[in-house]
Amino acid sequence: MTENTADTSRVVLLGLGDMGTAFARAWLAAGHPVTVWNRTASRAEPLAAEGADVAADPAAAVAAGRLVVTCLLDDASVGSVLEGVDLAGKDVVDVTTSTPGEARARAEWAAARGARFVSGGIMAVPPMVGVPESGGYTFYSGSAEAFAEHEKALSVPTGARFQGGDPGLAALLDVALLSAMDGMFAGFTHAFALARRSEVPPARVAELLEGWLAAMLPAAGEFAARLESGDFTTGVVSNLAMQAHGEKTLLRTAEEAGVSTELLLPYGDLMVRHVAAGGGDEDGAALVDRLLKDPA
Amino acid sequence: MTENTADTSRVVLLGLGDMGTAFARAWLAAGHPVTVWNRTASRAEPLAAEGADVAADPAAAVAAGRLVVTCLLDDASVGSVLEGVDLAGKDVVDVTTSTPGEARARAEWAAARGARFVSGGIMAVPPMVGVPESGGYTFYSGSAEAFAEHEKALSVPTGARFQGGDPGLAALLDVALLSAMDGMFAGFTHAFALARRSEVPPARVAELLEGWLAAMLPAAGEFAARLESGDFTTGVVSNLAMQAHGEKTLLRTAEEAGVSTELLLPYGDLMVRHVAAGGGDEDGAALVDRLLKDPA
Repeated sequence: MTENTADTSRVVLLGLGDMGTAFARAWLAAGHPVTVWNRTASRAEPLAAEGADVAADPAAAVAAGRLVVTCLLDDASVGSVLEGVDLAGKDVVDVTTSTPGEARARAEWAAARGARFVSGGIMAVPPMVGVPESGGYTFYSGSAEAFAEHEKALSVPTGARFQGGDPGLAALLDVALLSAMDGMFAGFTHAFALARRSEVPPARVAELLEGWLAAMLPAAGEFAARLESGDFTTGVVSNLAMQAHGEKTLLRTAEEAGVSTELLLPYGDLMVRHVAAGGGDEDGAALVDRLLKDPA
Repeated sequence: MTENTADTSRVVLLGLGDMGTAFARAWLAAGHPVTVWNRTASRAEPLAAEGADVAADPAAAVAAGRLVVTCLLDDASVGSVLEGVDLAGKDVVDVTTSTPGEARARAEWAAARGARFVSGGIMAVPPMVGVPESGGYTFYSGSAEAFAEHEKALSVPTGARFQGGDPGLAALLDVALLSAMDGMFAGFTHAFALARRSEVPPARVAELLEGWLAAMLPAAGEFAARLESGDFTTGVVSNLAMQAHGEKTLLRTAEEAGVSTELLLPYGDLMVRHVAAGGGDEDGAALVDRLLKDPA
């Protein structure tokens, strides 16, 4: 039973993209024996030089240890790579980006093969892996027992945050945060495009964006409070009728500058639909339920 | 000339929406004499009780002082409210939300009437006005002389940041930041909608969003560095081919959960167009120029 609490149990890692490679390096640096496999074998060579054992195929890799981490292109790749491999008694921790439904189906698939299953959603880019002060972390959900047994190893590449028994939960939170980041990046893209039509240097825009959006981030908590209370009208600072009117100035500015409105339009359209449905005096948080009940 | 440097020169304010009212209160609290006018006269009553002088019409208001601040619904309202009013020798500071083109045209319109003109873009919501620690500020641009003469008064409601002589600059920066905020809020909306389809409470989502987006905000500076250098390929952490692939998981997750993809699609489409044009190995900052040269 010493392996259960040791910091240096073996990790089997399938998939050596940038993220898998970063995870492997973090485990090697922390003293874990690591067995790796990758479809394109040359990706394993630098890791072999750093002390990793390289397996010839997925079955040989999986046979080398109990903790099997998959970091592949997508969920379909997980199925094809592990096809026919004996998983009985293994703990499969799948940090491949998946949908919640795919993660739940993969958990059943693993259970049918005698393995415990934990799904992971990595909230970091490769340069943040193995750098605790970067703030990167990974959501995990699924088998609490398997997570507890491997928590120390799983906490090496990034922080490890267990979210509960539903194997789809890690993916749900991962995708929710990545989707929100895409929204923020779409906003960056539009703002920089507008500034490209002026004399304002990009670095000045970046400085302004970082300050302004940091000041506006606590609005997430205000959205949450309204979604929990269901009260979208008390103490509204900028109601949707005003916001929809202001949106016209944003669109006219883009048109004036010759910048496509494509990144702005959908949120503005959602506002317009909610105002048309009688929600003009409500806070923007009401758009969450508008999106759910009245999609474009 | 004492009025030029006094902290308590008279402010004429046209427009008493929530923002105009907040500005008026801040000036009254700082000891400025304030003359107000609003189309719906009842909006002026509480301010009269707090010491404001209420003018019967815009001309009477403008006649009462040199600094004339307009805070109206839109640029067209500024033209109609000041139609026929004698502006000779006045300093018009227009904090109405306008496009850069509208602000430039309004500056010429004011000059033709013998007034100096400063355009303002308010980066605050009304509860932040008169609260220095809130971090709210207003961009100003246009007549540097007029701004300098009234800087103390203009610094009372929010911080005052003069951007240069182009009267369109304040509006450009205002609209760029508001557009980026809309992107972030669209991201919030999608993330909360996904979470509505799960057991995860909104407050938990808000906490995760605030932490994750704060960690990702410095990406704005990385966008700027690439836009300034024109180098979109060196040291790319997550290239657009990978991002476009990951986007499919975000879309599938939304579809699985029954959440409309309308807020996610345009940014994903922009990625796909850039990858199809041969930019798969580039950083996301390259999408700024893709948006400009290849609109949907």
